[in-house]
Amino acid sequence: MTRYLLERPHTLVSLTFFATRYGSAKSSISEDLTILKRTFQERGTGILETVPGAAGGARFIPGISEEEAILFVRKMETALTEENRFLPGGYVYMSDLLGQPDVLRQVGRIIATEYQEGAVDAVMTVATKGVPIAQSVASFLNVPFVIVRHDSQITEGSTVSVNYVSGSSNRIEKMALSKRSLKSGSRVLVVDDYMKAGGTVRGMQSLVKEFDSTVVGISVFAEGADTEDKVIEDYTSLLTVGVENEQVKVAPGNYLEKIFSKK
Amino acid sequence: MTRYLLERPHTLVSLTFFATRYGSAKSSISEDLTILKRTFQERGTGILETVPGAAGGARFIPGISEEEAILFVRKMETALTEENRFLPGGYVYMSDLLGQPDVLRQVGRIIATEYQEGAVDAVMTVATKGVPIAQSVASFLNVPFVIVRHDSQITEGSTVSVNYVSGSSNRIEKMALSKRSLKSGSRVLVVDDYMKAGGTVRGMQSLVKEFDSTVVGISVFAEGADTEDKVIEDYTSLLTVGVENEQVKVAPGNYLEKIFSKK
Repeated sequence: MTRYLLERPHTLVSLTFFATRYGSAKSSISEDLTILKRTFQERGTGILETVPGAAGGARFIPGISEEEAILFVRKMETALTEENRFLPGGYVYMSDLLGQPDVLRQVGRIIATEYQEGAVDAVMTVATKGVPIAQSVASFLNVPFVIVRHDSQITEGSTVSVNYVSGSSNRIEKMALSKRSLKSGSRVLVVDDYMKAGGTVRGMQSLVKEFDSTVVGISVFAEGADTEDKVIEDYTSLLTVGVENEQVKVAPGNYLEKIFSKK
Repeated sequence: MTRYLLERPHTLVSLTFFATRYGSAKSSISEDLTILKRTFQERGTGILETVPGAAGGARFIPGISEEEAILFVRKMETALTEENRFLPGGYVYMSDLLGQPDVLRQVGRIIATEYQEGAVDAVMTVATKGVPIAQSVASFLNVPFVIVRHDSQITEGSTVSVNYVSGSSNRIEKMALSKRSLKSGSRVLVVDDYMKAGGTVRGMQSLVKEFDSTVVGISVFAEGADTEDKVIEDYTSLLTVGVENEQVKVAPGNYLEKIFSKK
């Protein structure tokens, strides 16, 4: 039952279904759900919503506790501060972290915690390094994710494309999304691995508009430390990453404050 | 306990750890594990290996039952046969399926079932559409995944690149992998969303060699139906996809036969 619920976040599973599946009385299923609810709460796994009545059941809404989120952000800070991550041009090497299943699982849980109310229909990101984050967030929200590309591929069919100004370099760039990948009227959560000035995110915002859809949130794993040239205002970041004298400087982003202060 | 084990596949969790975490006697933890073991087996969730003795514990090895795998392959066949998936040039639109968390979860479980013995150190794929599959497989095997790219990005640091012949078009192409992303001596599982002639996969094979590593398996979601020009021999595919008279033709790949006939 635990596995079934965990694998189907944000989905109402009826008591009747569980009763049939496990050959038990609804009353014992109901008791088990109460235990599960308490355990989830105690462990900070998320919320188990139970809906009473004949049409009732349970819905698992993944989340993370403030303690666990803080621990994770600290762990990432430590990992990113390792000195061999500095790259020429002031970039920071993060690909290894974002290729680890346990890191991605936590990033997904943390970002999904912001959108527990279920106001997201699709997660959007841009190829390539945002993809694992989008996938993880999408799995916790149980919604599809779509990948915006810089090159348009023959295997995507017809696409909608926009030009955008890359915030940091002031160059005009292009991004495209397969026409059939997003329904109009979707509420879209934009995620990415790294946001410097936010030009790419702004590009995705205008792409979302082209699909008659709305951006309901912007969440990034890391943002650049130079905030004065940011073109995006309302977003959350887990980390702030900067480079000073060829040394990587990492600090927590605005996530912890934004999410847990209002709770 | 279920959640803890499910989230850490292929990891031995000690009885002592569970006993401390839940404030229970080792004997009751041990009994619970026996129940869990039976449940996992009955439901085809995978194998719960229990290691007896003082240093003992339990290890969850994800897997899928033949019945569930067959059902999933049929479901994908049906989904891909929908007529609006045909694209000019004989391509088939699949991006929507590979952006659905539940589809990806099953693809990951199915492919991971082939490598339950744990002989994989890393999963490799090529950007962009292989990424979600690599991520899902990696999460079930609990190993990192690495992304090979056609463009080399400044944020990857120094890279190792190879030229390869695209099997279907006979063009020379280039692919690169960040130098620090793969340790030498790794046993690598190569995955991708679609394999036509296999040129890209062969490129990844030579890249793996450049890292003094070994390819231990090749698994793709779908392979092209024209088999005569394949340059890769030993692989598994969940589906075979072809186009005839602008109609998409889908059939099961060689996976079901290869995996379940030997079990």
